[in-house]
Amino acid sequence: MVARAIRIGLIGSGRSHPKWDDWAEEIGRGIAEHGGILICGGTSGVMASAARGARKAGGVTVGILPGAHADEANPFISIPIATGLGEGRNLLVVQSSDLLIAVGGGAGTLSEIGFALKLHKPLILLGSWEIRPPSGNDSLANHAHTVDSPAEAIQLALRLLRLSR
Amino acid sequence: MVARAIRIGLIGSGRSHPKWDDWAEEIGRGIAEHGGILICGGTSGVMASAARGARKAGGVTVGILPGAHADEANPFISIPIATGLGEGRNLLVVQSSDLLIAVGGGAGTLSEIGFALKLHKPLILLGSWEIRPPSGNDSLANHAHTVDSPAEAIQLALRLLRLSR
Amino acid sequence: MVARAIRIGLIGSGRSHPKWDDWAEEIGRGIAEHGGILICGGTSGVMASAARGARKAGGVTVGILPGAHADEANPFISIPIATGLGEGRNLLVVQSSDLLIAVGGGAGTLSEIGFALKLHKPLILLGSWEIRPPSGNDSLANHAHTVDSPAEAIQLALRLLRLSR
Amino acid sequence: MVARAIRIGLIGSGRSHPKWDDWAEEIGRGIAEHGGILICGGTSGVMASAARGARKAGGVTVGILPGAHADEANPFISIPIATGLGEGRNLLVVQSSDLLIAVGGGAGTLSEIGFALKLHKPLILLGSWEIRPPSGNDSLANHAHTVDSPAEAIQLALRLLRLSR
Repeated sequence: MVARAIRIGLIGSGRSHPKWDDWAEEIGRGIAEHGGILICGGTSGVMASAARGARKAGGVTVGILPGAHADEANPFISIPIATGLGEGRNLLVVQSSDLLIAVGGGAGTLSEIGFALKLHKPLILLGSWEIRPPSGNDSLANHAHTVDSPAEAIQLALRLLRLSR
Repeated sequence: MVARAIRIGLIGSGRSHPKWDDWAEEIGRGIAEHGGILICGGTSGVMASAARGARKAGGVTVGILPGAHADEANPFISIPIATGLGEGRNLLVVQSSDLLIAVGGGAGTLSEIGFALKLHKPLILLGSWEIRPPSGNDSLANHAHTVDSPAEAIQLALRLLRLSR
Repeated sequence: MVARAIRIGLIGSGRSHPKWDDWAEEIGRGIAEHGGILICGGTSGVMASAARGARKAGGVTVGILPGAHADEANPFISIPIATGLGEGRNLLVVQSSDLLIAVGGGAGTLSEIGFALKLHKPLILLGSWEIRPPSGNDSLANHAHTVDSPAEAIQLALRLLRLSR
Repeated sequence: MVARAIRIGLIGSGRSHPKWDDWAEEIGRGIAEHGGILICGGTSGVMASAARGARKAGGVTVGILPGAHADEANPFISIPIATGLGEGRNLLVVQSSDLLIAVGGGAGTLSEIGFALKLHKPLILLGSWEIRPPSGNDSLANHAHTVDSPAEAIQLALRLLRLSR
């Protein structure tokens, strides 16, 4: 038995977008360089970029796929999980991660942000959704932290995980 | 065979909150009075209030439960669905509804808002989350409409469903 | 609030098969005539036949669909639930039913038989899979009862549900 | 990018049983020695034994957990996936594996056998359920192969995977 590695979830859009893809690749590399496992949705966009960054740095990448076939994983995923849950796999990404980093994002990303807040997982937002809870529930977003760069995201992730362990 | 009734999903917090509960009960009643089926998460808070309103008006209420046992449904649910999916049942609420109305809300509600936007379901927000998409993805929230009262929510729901059929 | 109706799940193959379809229609009618709600997978084969039988007798039919769109329900389903879980919806059929009746069946039906045994739900088999547990686990199939006709299935279902309430 | 390793799913009971546990450990070791990744349900019984065998041989072990927390994985799981799906995670084990080996088994195992047959995954049974399809559907169990020892299971698995690639 070996101590289990930290698992960091990278969430964001499946559509390519130059800035988000660059950020995701840098974050994926950072996760691997610090010995972490990258958890993501396993398909395209930031999920492919982050996995590429992690693999280049020798890391392990887990793709929690929407479909029922492992073949749909991008080529940088070392462990594909074929959920067949469609967008429902977003919850498994959140639950399986110690901390989440959102880079940009589409509507599916918003569902993951909701799940991260619900489950009190530390959440780092980089160029992502801006959210304000309903009046009277203002504390809901307390676990969400906004950063301005991939480097800052990695530094904050390490700090938050040290605190939460 | 009979034409299938319109199904309207009511989403929001499981914690009681006087204003939200009153709004939800009024919306539940409105859905039933217009011959609609109420879809909700089947537990407490606005889910119980909306179901009570719908049942008082003679309506049918479906509770898509987080747990694996039908017994956890509130007493105003006529059809309990025991998903065992936890928060993952939120996606089933969205998918099974023709339109969603969010009343107030917690973090789980934010996940449902994300799913509604992802699936292009018409979405009406009453005293709920304020959201702004990442820069460059501004059209994502186009299907979300903010209203100020339960009566307005029902009127808008009927109008949107007429348009989308 | 009204006492909740008994929910009986009908499981079996999605492929049409004259004998199975006839049996399923008769069972669907029997469920409705005794005031029960029919739970099924909502698509074709015995799921359509049972729902047709139940609707002709004025019953309520719930279709727990594999796909993410309510439109895929057969025309005899009054309440479609769009799970998007694929074959994973089989577990929801089992969990949401007070008792299961298997009519004939394919491989998916075997998964439902397994879930019914796992969850200790009473299970009635009509022309369905024959199963023998691994040596040493012989009690596993104790909740499974084999019958020879639709009429016998309904009679036994009523008896088992009276006992279990 | 590296060619993805073969993924073999080990299914069976969560309750300890000396013979099954020994068989599972030997199979886990065999999977790892041939460079495969072990996929399992991540909890106790044969899932722990197989993972222990695989880890002792330096392998990677994936635990697709029923609960929503990675902490419930047994100590021999290198990659825990927290599904929160309860018994519904059985489908993900099957979908994520190239081939399944059942060792003994409980009722949940029967659901996995059903899913493996449904998805036409090669399936090897060692001291597990005996099943006979409904009359007229006899071809359903064509992908199921019965063996008498762990060594035979590993040899057959390698042969079947070579054929199917």
